[in-house]
Amino acid sequence: MASIAEKLADKQQEISVGEFFERNKHILGFDSLTKALVTTVKEGVDNSLDACEEAEILPEIKVEIEEVGDREYKVAIEDNGPGIVKRKVPEVFGKLLYGSRFHEISQSRGQQGIGVSAVVMYGQLTTGKPTKVRSKINEKDYANEMKITLDTKKNEPEVLNEEVVLWEGKEHGMRFETTVKGLLRRGKHSVFEYLKNTAIVNPHAKIEFDRDGDKTVFKRATDQLPEKPEAVMPHLKGIELGTLAKMAKNADRRTLKSFLKNEFSRISYSKAEEICEEADIDPKTNPSDLEVEDHKDILNAAEEVKLMSPKTDCLSPIKGMLIKKGLKNVLKGNHPEYYAPPTTRDPNVYSGNPFQVEVGLVYGGELEKEGPVKVLRFANRVPLLYKKGGCATTTAIKNIDWRIYDLDQKGGKGMPSGPAVILIHVASTRVPFTSEAKEAIADIPEVIDEIEKGLRECARSLRTHLNKEKKRKKVKKKFTVVNDILPMIAKKSAEIIGEEPPELDRSLTKIMGVVYIEEESSWEDGRCKMEIEIMNYTPKERDMELFFEKPYPETELLSSNVEPDHEGDHLEWKIEDLEPSETRTFSIEFDGDLEKDDLDGTDIYIEGVGETKLIGAEPLPEDWDIELTDIEEED
Amino acid sequence: MASIAEKLADKQQEISVGEFFERNKHILGFDSLTKALVTTVKEGVDNSLDACEEAEILPEIKVEIEEVGDREYKVAIEDNGPGIVKRKVPEVFGKLLYGSRFHEISQSRGQQGIGVSAVVMYGQLTTGKPTKVRSKINEKDYANEMKITLDTKKNEPEVLNEEVVLWEGKEHGMRFETTVKGLLRRGKHSVFEYLKNTAIVNPHAKIEFDRDGDKTVFKRATDQLPEKPEAVMPHLKGIELGTLAKMAKNADRRTLKSFLKNEFSRISYSKAEEICEEADIDPKTNPSDLEVEDHKDILNAAEEVKLMSPKTDCLSPIKGMLIKKGLKNVLKGNHPEYYAPPTTRDPNVYSGNPFQVEVGLVYGGELEKEGPVKVLRFANRVPLLYKKGGCATTTAIKNIDWRIYDLDQKGGKGMPSGPAVILIHVASTRVPFTSEAKEAIADIPEVIDEIEKGLRECARSLRTHLNKEKKRKKVKKKFTVVNDILPMIAKKSAEIIGEEPPELDRSLTKIMGVVYIEEESSWEDGRCKMEIEIMNYTPKERDMELFFEKPYPETELLSSNVEPDHEGDHLEWKIEDLEPSETRTFSIEFDGDLEKDDLDGTDIYIEGVGETKLIGAEPLPEDWDIELTDIEEED
Repeated sequence: MASIAEKLADKQQEISVGEFFERNKHILGFDSLTKALVTTVKEGVDNSLDACEEAEILPEIKVEIEEVGDREYKVAIEDNGPGIVKRKVPEVFGKLLYGSRFHEISQSRGQQGIGVSAVVMYGQLTTGKPTKVRSKINEKDYANEMKITLDTKKNEPEVLNEEVVLWEGKEHGMRFETTVKGLLRRGKHSVFEYLKNTAIVNPHAKIEFDRDGDKTVFKRATDQLPEKPEAVMPHLKGIELGTLAKMAKNADRRTLKSFLKNEFSRISYSKAEEICEEADIDPKTNPSDLEVEDHKDILNAAEEVKLMSPKTDCLSPIKGMLIKKGLKNVLKGNHPEYYAPPTTRDPNVYSGNPFQVEVGLVYGGELEKEGPVKVLRFANRVPLLYKKGGCATTTAIKNIDWRIYDLDQKGGKGMPSGPAVILIHVASTRVPFTSEAKEAIADIPEVIDEIEKGLRECARSLRTHLNKEKKRKKVKKKFTVVNDILPMIAKKSAEIIGEEPPELDRSLTKIMGVVYIEEESSWEDGRCKMEIEIMNYTPKERDMELFFEKPYPETELLSSNVEPDHEGDHLEWKIEDLEPSETRTFSIEFDGDLEKDDLDGTDIYIEGVGETKLIGAEPLPEDWDIELTDIEEED
Repeated sequence: MASIAEKLADKQQEISVGEFFERNKHILGFDSLTKALVTTVKEGVDNSLDACEEAEILPEIKVEIEEVGDREYKVAIEDNGPGIVKRKVPEVFGKLLYGSRFHEISQSRGQQGIGVSAVVMYGQLTTGKPTKVRSKINEKDYANEMKITLDTKKNEPEVLNEEVVLWEGKEHGMRFETTVKGLLRRGKHSVFEYLKNTAIVNPHAKIEFDRDGDKTVFKRATDQLPEKPEAVMPHLKGIELGTLAKMAKNADRRTLKSFLKNEFSRISYSKAEEICEEADIDPKTNPSDLEVEDHKDILNAAEEVKLMSPKTDCLSPIKGMLIKKGLKNVLKGNHPEYYAPPTTRDPNVYSGNPFQVEVGLVYGGELEKEGPVKVLRFANRVPLLYKKGGCATTTAIKNIDWRIYDLDQKGGKGMPSGPAVILIHVASTRVPFTSEAKEAIADIPEVIDEIEKGLRECARSLRTHLNKEKKRKKVKKKFTVVNDILPMIAKKSAEIIGEEPPELDRSLTKIMGVVYIEEESSWEDGRCKMEIEIMNYTPKERDMELFFEKPYPETELLSSNVEPDHEGDHLEWKIEDLEPSETRTFSIEFDGDLEKDDLDGTDIYIEGVGETKLIGAEPLPEDWDIELTDIEEED
């Protein structure tokens, strides 16, 4: 046997990282021609969005795809980000496992330093062509341009030629052009779908898509940049034993107490002492002297001691109104009847990693009535198009009995069906993807639980809405009866007894008991007119506020019969002393390159009327991060 | 912006392979506690099986799992393989991307050099403990034992201590012990299930499983080693452009013609010339002088020119009888009524990689009648337990309208249901896994197509069987009628006309027209008795052969009323001159530690009777690789 063992030994050798990923390109998202093209665009756009946010720039991204041969496409991605300094360009594009965020605990799209260099590798592997990269970091400077390939054997970049070029009209930014084998499809798994969904969860980005000269623009729905996520320290709860061991071994601090306080988040000196006591270790021990059993005791102690949840300023959720805007931007053509107020759950933790779940639900109108509801899945603002079946989002949806929320679901199991779109966004410093291709979220119980809770919140809103819809229909009927017949009866009765007909308004409002809003809008040539009627069918004089959310930052108020009390991303009118039976009408007109369905009744909110008394509009969700003008004080 | 670009540049740095996989351990199969334990066992067993086959040793593998703490298990895996030479042990176990098969095109379980070192890494990460490895390569020598950890920052092994030990009773082999966090489950995704399924497709292996002292042994069903797969050269058709470019650049040959002939499989000098002509390139060109456009032309030419499919001696399918034996070894307790002859498809190619599909189907008896059919998925003789939904095997099953093969399937779509088990094995020099965790096969059209064809073959056999079952019932009824009533009628009629009753045998056999086999067996104390009756209900005198397949190599024929003409893995009797209406009976007795259900009628085959005339046994499948004794010549 010794000779066989020797023979085998001779064959054993180190394998290059580059060759490993070259062979296993399917785990990087290049497993089919269609997907390869989506992945190429995705890696570029993810990087551009990350870079823009890092530099606090409102992203403007151009994606160009041109068919240049049989199943061969030239793909160019350009941004207005900060650019990359010349000396780093080759490695960022031509070396796998090279990046800036691997050792940082923060929410970002890319993290592993593989994405865009995998694109370069895939391009050269399938078409033999290098990737051309242009970068400009300073308004007054020239841009650098170079052609790059990746030597997979060494995992090092090769720069084929370098030029200094004038990049006019561009203050700063990146552009790369690569040629890849691929297949440009339409529909579910397409580049278009990917960009559309990216626009939904990145309402602060403007994204242009040019497909062989055929252009689509996804407009910016807000010019509010997402809050910049902060990098944080790890949380002791749920950290791997080996990670703790490594940190302790390399710790700068001299005592365990100081190590715990300074290298973990949410641990004060007193908490550190509590942990040491629970673990029965002297707080003055040098952390590098700790042994495996001590590490275990510390982790067990962390489970016993009450620790604050990880800090959440490392997360940057999209949040309510912007999720709705994103959804509306894309779904408006289907005239949905209802947007449930999107839910942003409180941050939670799995294995020491903070994460946060957001859920949106859109219902009715002309959304597809047949078949399962449509699900839009996102992780750190990146759409997930593939592997739906193996994703925690799907698990969570299937866990719910949707029938109690008035959605169809066969046997209370599996995907619900009906005219609804569900959006799920998971933000985390480390999204637990099932593979490096980042296509699906692993079934982590804590994550599934949060998604379920978010889904239920939206589902409850939907049920309330559907009940109110029923009520609205009843109210409408009642309205006809009460408004037409009651006065007639009163009149007849009065005639009979020879008296004046009684004042009915008070009785009418008592019977109705609602504030009723009706809206009508018309569109012409990029302008939109809207009439909002607010009717007080309650027996009480009422004060309230009317909010109207503009679709785009550049939407302009042309005229309004009543001067708004605030104008910004939203309009705000204070309505005072609305008498029982009184109707107030707001006629407003907007301009700003509007499309037909840009404005509708789902943008109207009323503050100051109880939800159950409000018919035809939604109350402004309390947890939505809208800067309310304190009108009282302005008076 | 320049300052931001500079700030970003400072953060950009190289990421260590070790740290990359440490963080992304889910892509290596360590995404949950249950799975981590299965993966730990799997990586060890895969390596053991590969090593034994490489050294042409019948594998004997022991797997021991002991609970040593809260969700903490000691796992030991031991084999009788060739062992590993001492100097290579640290790297094989303590360095990721280190292996012997990465640059070889051949069918093997492990290939990337990640598996077992990932186990070592996972163990130290979750329990802080090193892995203990023992290896013995020579009968007369001592064994080496060392404790190993992996320095993830450098991706290098650390040897903690080294010993020379006596390993008695072991000529050669490996054993490693590691401690991991995990969860030992029963059922679908368990270690037990993994080992059971491994036994099905590795009938030449003996596998012992010791779970906290509770032992199970999967016996060897054959002592025939699988054919050793040969390493081959790549096939030009479907190779990546980049791979061709790299090969051409590094080629030793001086001319393109010689390069094509010598570095690719299935290309002769004349084929090489044909390709050069089609590509319009001088065959004398130095391959390293070729440019991208030339590479493309060569690949296009390869598509035009008729090339032989890749050599298939690099593949080692399990093949018919052994698949059946493996299935029976595990399913016998359910007394299935029918094993469709497993299909081994001819090898095919995807992207230049040869692959081969095998399919088995078992039906009826006490197999679970409710719910979807059970699917056993395998790649290169390794069971796939996870990600069923995202696997090409599932896609292929769902593509078929099973209703035409008499299986239930709602709307002719999705998984069929009923009492059936489907086995699918994909063997390839490069199985297209969807991730490095090797859990599912990617949806490659060529692979799906082959699986579908294999499934249809088995499904057709099932349909034939079900029709024959109907026929058998009819025949049985007829038999009663014909055998009981006809003679009575004849007798009565004869009495009436005052003649002797006529000879009815010929008429009877004409009416029946089948060869009918009945079998009965009984079991006691590891011994099994069996009686096989063969009845010729055809009007013709017949010669045929009776085959009986023994369940285990050690199964021993104790007695037989008729001396078999051959005894080996199967028994063979030549039956000559079986007259119409004649019945011949074979009474046989077996010994060899048999279990109750080890022998039954599904092991009986008849050669020499047309399939449609054969009731109660199957014809011996023609393509099964059974060494038939040519009995004629022995006479």
